Amino acid sequence: MDEIVFVGLGLHDEMGISLRGLEEVKTADNVFIELYTSLLPNFSIERFEKISGKKLHVVSRRELEEENGEAILKAAETGKAVLLVPGDPLIATTHVALRIQAEKIGIKTRVVHGASILSAVIGLSGLHNYKFGKTVTIPLPSETPSETPYEVIAQNKRFGLHTLCLLDIKVDGNRYMKIREGLESLLKIEEKRRERIVTMDTLALGIARAGSSNPTVKAGFLKDLLTYDFGEPPHSIIFPGKLHFMEAEALIVLACAPENLRR
Amino acid sequence: MDEIVFVGLGLHDEMGISLRGLEEVKTADNVFIELYTSLLPNFSIERFEKISGKKLHVVSRRELEEENGEAILKAAETGKAVLLVPGDPLIATTHVALRIQAEKIGIKTRVVHGASILSAVIGLSGLHNYKFGKTVTIPLPSETPSETPYEVIAQNKRFGLHTLCLLDIKVDGNRYMKIREGLESLLKIEEKRRERIVTMDTLALGIARAGSSNPTVKAGFLKDLLTYDFGEPPHSIIFPGKLHFMEAEALIVLACAPENLRR
Repeated sequence: MDEIVFVGLGLHDEMGISLRGLEEVKTADNVFIELYTSLLPNFSIERFEKISGKKLHVVSRRELEEENGEAILKAAETGKAVLLVPGDPLIATTHVALRIQAEKIGIKTRVVHGASILSAVIGLSGLHNYKFGKTVTIPLPSETPSETPYEVIAQNKRFGLHTLCLLDIKVDGNRYMKIREGLESLLKIEEKRRERIVTMDTLALGIARAGSSNPTVKAGFLKDLLTYDFGEPPHSIIFPGKLHFMEAEALIVLACAPENLRR
Repeated sequence: MDEIVFVGLGLHDEMGISLRGLEEVKTADNVFIELYTSLLPNFSIERFEKISGKKLHVVSRRELEEENGEAILKAAETGKAVLLVPGDPLIATTHVALRIQAEKIGIKTRVVHGASILSAVIGLSGLHNYKFGKTVTIPLPSETPSETPYEVIAQNKRFGLHTLCLLDIKVDGNRYMKIREGLESLLKIEEKRRERIVTMDTLALGIARAGSSNPTVKAGFLKDLLTYDFGEPPHSIIFPGKLHFMEAEALIVLACAPENLRR
């Protein structure tokens, strides 16, 4: 059967894959893996090959985006190809593009989902899922500066909504944006626009290593978070909107937020 | 070690759990499971007990919400208790409440994430994650009628954003809202408010059985979706906002949307 199965690796390491995902790998003719769209800090290709009994072909950004995943499409012509991706597949647009291309030339595609950073950090925050507005990514300082993250936070706040800020990564350059860098980048925009959206007294929540056995989840004012040691990446930031009392309680008990949040 | 580990079961059946999640179950002293916050259509307690070698204690809504998870807290006092939950844990507020209570009385808690319906349907839709606004749940017709879903769709559309509509379920009463019922409920509000937010010519996307091997993903105008057979639940609906051309392409190729979306 010629098909591509997109399998999510979930979070953190080789134990994040689902039982069904592992089954798909074991019964595949060819197994590909990309590890550049998201960081799995403790993932070991060697250990995964041992668990699954399969050899992994690592595909680079170039192969997937410039060569349009040609090797994967070719493998799918004569058998079952699995593409392993961090988190939940098809959240990165590059996987959707490959899926569209495969279906257009008659190759069947299926998806085996995995835990995603999106729901993981929402869960760890204790904040209510249906109160999150639009999500945004803060670009690395080396990239083209953008005021979009600031504007998204402002727009969500106007409606009392929380904002999840993902932080940019460049796996090739081994660059993973830290919470401090993300906050500093927003403070720089604040300095220019002065709308009092992100100030030293703004409440925010930093989350590091979601999906590991020791995530760091800390809520506080920016002046406190800027010097807080969140440890190893990956990092994310949440800017809360209007807090329900149960959400305030969660931030205090689960994320060491200042007690005076409880009012 | 006295602790509660919240373990996500992921989607659809007993194969949705991660390898790490299964490890936590195997090394637990007591394993609890709740199956009322979300529908896992093919989950078998018997098969899961066989895979894990552990006996599962099913906890009801009453035990978790009215009795505040007393049995779980008690078990955690003398050993490791695992609470298995559908999807990704802590997305349902009832799990957050239990977590807060445990931490307050000195019981450690940890989380093992699982695939969530939230990222799964976004991935299956082919729409861009960062263009989703607030999520909303459409209540069953038997519940208090609410215009909130209509208002959320309207508000998101004003900003060009997509809206994920989760559909209400009542596991006790074996009632799982269908896409058709969700659309009809919105059309009823449209009849009253006449803001042309949800009409027969509005584009929407229905997704059934995300996480199974045969999900149904169909985009079209409401007049077409109302008679479309999506098969067994669980069902969800997405109302797209402004479409990027790659998103339109995804809807056409992956969700059989009308070709004239490609402009």
